Amino acid sequence: MRILGIDPGYGRIGYGLLDKTGNKFKTVNYGVIYTDKELDLPSRLHQIQNSIYELVDKYEPDESSVEELFFFRNVTTAIQVGEARGVILVSLVEKNIPIYEYTPFQIKQAVTGYGRAEKGQIQRTLKLLLNLKKTPTPDDAADALAAAFCHGNFRGVNFAK
Amino acid sequence: MRILGIDPGYGRIGYGLLDKTGNKFKTVNYGVIYTDKELDLPSRLHQIQNSIYELVDKYEPDESSVEELFFFRNVTTAIQVGEARGVILVSLVEKNIPIYEYTPFQIKQAVTGYGRAEKGQIQRTLKLLLNLKKTPTPDDAADALAAAFCHGNFRGVNFAK
Repeated sequence: MRILGIDPGYGRIGYGLLDKTGNKFKTVNYGVIYTDKELDLPSRLHQIQNSIYELVDKYEPDESSVEELFFFRNVTTAIQVGEARGVILVSLVEKNIPIYEYTPFQIKQAVTGYGRAEKGQIQRTLKLLLNLKKTPTPDDAADALAAAFCHGNFRGVNFAK
Repeated sequence: MRILGIDPGYGRIGYGLLDKTGNKFKTVNYGVIYTDKELDLPSRLHQIQNSIYELVDKYEPDESSVEELFFFRNVTTAIQVGEARGVILVSLVEKNIPIYEYTPFQIKQAVTGYGRAEKGQIQRTLKLLLNLKKTPTPDDAADALAAAFCHGNFRGVNFAK
């Protein structure tokens, strides 16, 4: 089963693709989608939609795992990231990819066993768990891999196959 | 010129369509899109997208006027309405409808001359301005008509035709 993990954002959207066979994970790819700061909001949202479509067409994931938005310093940022996340979700629905949502706490706990783990700890643990040659960076990409890993683990526990 | 006004929401999305010819407005239609409370978030976002597509296909607006999100009691609501608004915007981009955004203050001011006008005042003023037989309800639909009216007025001032 191939899982697409997504760390939602407006200017930067992390993605991570994992294949899970039995109990084993294999990392397919990970990275960050950037939107063009010089464009207006609707055009940047359209870039996000097109990028999600491209990822799905290229990697053909079976399921997706999208981090829930949780805490923001201010409402303006929350609205903006919410707008981007809405576009990500509807793009996945449009492509018929089942969506699973996890809180940051659940994702951190799935990777490190500790729901309040710091970014660096998540990245180092992912390197070990996924047997990567280098620590996954930047944060957004690592968080997306973590979301995919989290779903892969819950999937094994909660769903008969 | 036909303007589609939108009052963004997650469970309820107001819409209002106005034709502007010279300085005259004609009301085409207005109403509310409801999303199904029993569905999950991604499915409700998909309902929003499909409803926007249907509105655009049916009424063929030349431009759209979408209210900006402004104030929320809590961040969770802000994120949720943000997700819905992102979907609305990207659906309009997908249909090649130019998008203009106005704050609630600008919209209220355009209709009543007073940026902090109450809902009832906006509805009564719209009835007069648009020569409607009855006061437009519910709030969401009236707000969407107000957004369309606001754009129609600014459009006349700011853009040569």
